[in-house]
Amino acid sequence: MISPFPPAPTLQEITEAHRRIAPFIHRTPVYTCQGINRIAGAEIWFKCENMQKVGAFKARGATNAIRSLEPGLLKHGVATHSSGNHAQALSWAARLIGTPAHIVMPSNSSKVKLNAVKSYEGKITLCAPTLEAREETLASVIQQTGAIEIHPYNNLKIIAGQATATVELLEEKPDLDSVLAPVGGGGLLSGTALACHYLAPLIRVIAAEPVEADDAFKSFTERRFIPSMNPTTIADGLRTSLGSLTFPIILEYVDRIVTVSDHSIIEAMKLIWERMKLIVEPSAAVPLAALIEKRELFPGDKIGIILSGGNADLDHLPWKL
Amino acid sequence: MISPFPPAPTLQEITEAHRRIAPFIHRTPVYTCQGINRIAGAEIWFKCENMQKVGAFKARGATNAIRSLEPGLLKHGVATHSSGNHAQALSWAARLIGTPAHIVMPSNSSKVKLNAVKSYEGKITLCAPTLEAREETLASVIQQTGAIEIHPYNNLKIIAGQATATVELLEEKPDLDSVLAPVGGGGLLSGTALACHYLAPLIRVIAAEPVEADDAFKSFTERRFIPSMNPTTIADGLRTSLGSLTFPIILEYVDRIVTVSDHSIIEAMKLIWERMKLIVEPSAAVPLAALIEKRELFPGDKIGIILSGGNADLDHLPWKL
Repeated sequence: MISPFPPAPTLQEITEAHRRIAPFIHRTPVYTCQGINRIAGAEIWFKCENMQKVGAFKARGATNAIRSLEPGLLKHGVATHSSGNHAQALSWAARLIGTPAHIVMPSNSSKVKLNAVKSYEGKITLCAPTLEAREETLASVIQQTGAIEIHPYNNLKIIAGQATATVELLEEKPDLDSVLAPVGGGGLLSGTALACHYLAPLIRVIAAEPVEADDAFKSFTERRFIPSMNPTTIADGLRTSLGSLTFPIILEYVDRIVTVSDHSIIEAMKLIWERMKLIVEPSAAVPLAALIEKRELFPGDKIGIILSGGNADLDHLPWKL
Repeated sequence: MISPFPPAPTLQEITEAHRRIAPFIHRTPVYTCQGINRIAGAEIWFKCENMQKVGAFKARGATNAIRSLEPGLLKHGVATHSSGNHAQALSWAARLIGTPAHIVMPSNSSKVKLNAVKSYEGKITLCAPTLEAREETLASVIQQTGAIEIHPYNNLKIIAGQATATVELLEEKPDLDSVLAPVGGGGLLSGTALACHYLAPLIRVIAAEPVEADDAFKSFTERRFIPSMNPTTIADGLRTSLGSLTFPIILEYVDRIVTVSDHSIIEAMKLIWERMKLIVEPSAAVPLAALIEKRELFPGDKIGIILSGGNADLDHLPWKL
């Protein structure tokens, strides 16, 4: 057991986060699909965060983190290093409150991702594509600008914000047997686990992870932090490793972590596109892939899945090579 | 003025259709998207029939047509010739009521479309890819089986069924200035126009059509029936020509028909995928394409669009050649 660790967000902090962000985010729909239920042998309720602002649940955490800061602290903006949905979410949330967002991105980021951040008026600083260069460049940007760092997941306000997706899911479907979420850095997963723990403690919380980026599975199994080394999975949102704040929450409140192949992820992604007419990115399809690949690991009939995001690259589909 | 023509469905017939089909179809959501609103310079409300059963509004008409028949007439099944969404919708609706659906399809139909009909247990008869062969083969199938023909659009029960999409849209957004629908054979458009006429007569009903299949535009302008000759538009659901029942309704109740290029259709389709995270087929993107291409033709700020279907071929995207 790892301890002591900073206290996890309380139910009250999650409830306050929800009240704080509700005017700015979408209350996303919860859908079921008979065709997919038949294939999976379960009744699945999908919480559609792919239809969230900026196309991902990250809008929740970023909004909560920024709007939890004292207004005086926002004077010089916020900053992060990210090439993914957090970069877009932070840029969007910062613009909405009227402060700049400084985003450090690796120089090999795709044009699609650079343009997405630019479209939300994020101020981009490019750096070499290594974690070291990203951290150094971010430190230098913060020193020059006085901006406040908002980490993508290792931040209690981010975790409380991400938890609100599950709060809404449970308001609509309180009688679920299990809830599945993908795990990358663990912000969504730890928030999901906390929401279930506080609001519906009998629900089993199960994480799904690409076998090609299985740091969370290994860390969870061995109960010590084992980071990923250059993971290559198609699920680009899940290549990060757990953080010092998310890992202890996951250890305590998550029931199981299941890994799946990239092949299954692509199949599940295409299934959601075809049957639900919803665009989800590869990371969002990981829980359904796990459910279909390893049905026996998911007890109960009623399963909630957080569809984490929809920012797929429409010019490079994984099933069209 | 063309007259006399068979009476159009009444408000009561549309209301009865809605009551008849409601237990079997989805009440699809109505979404707006700030990003697209900014681009189009309007407040657009999309009625998401891409999320309807079988992925298209056609489930409404097929269900109404089949369930309006005397049970005795259903003994030998139903039949149609179609390679598109009506084939799937009729197969699905027939299976649900427990009668066979005989579907005549051209031998060059894509595997995707053949498999879709098979997945709903439609009984397929292949024929040469000409209208003549399709009609002859259908006549022969009907003679052999005793099945009842359900035409894809030239059928008053089909028209009344398709009208119900707009009934639902107007229940949620009664204060629209215009409603846009795509036009192929005119089943959806004539139903849309009738629903607006009865329920919100001040709304302008505007049809959008690919310039590569502009039979409705020409027929509407010249007020005489001018069929399409081998149209080649990407919007495969709109290659058919108007029917003897749909044309008079369109002449009387539609305000304007606008044509758009295939290029604009593809752009609008991709925009809906990217911004709304919704999969729509090319035909469904035609109204938004018209709105963006010819904004000045659409009076008023609040515009309803029927997103007619989502059965895009995910292995052959039009922007990925």
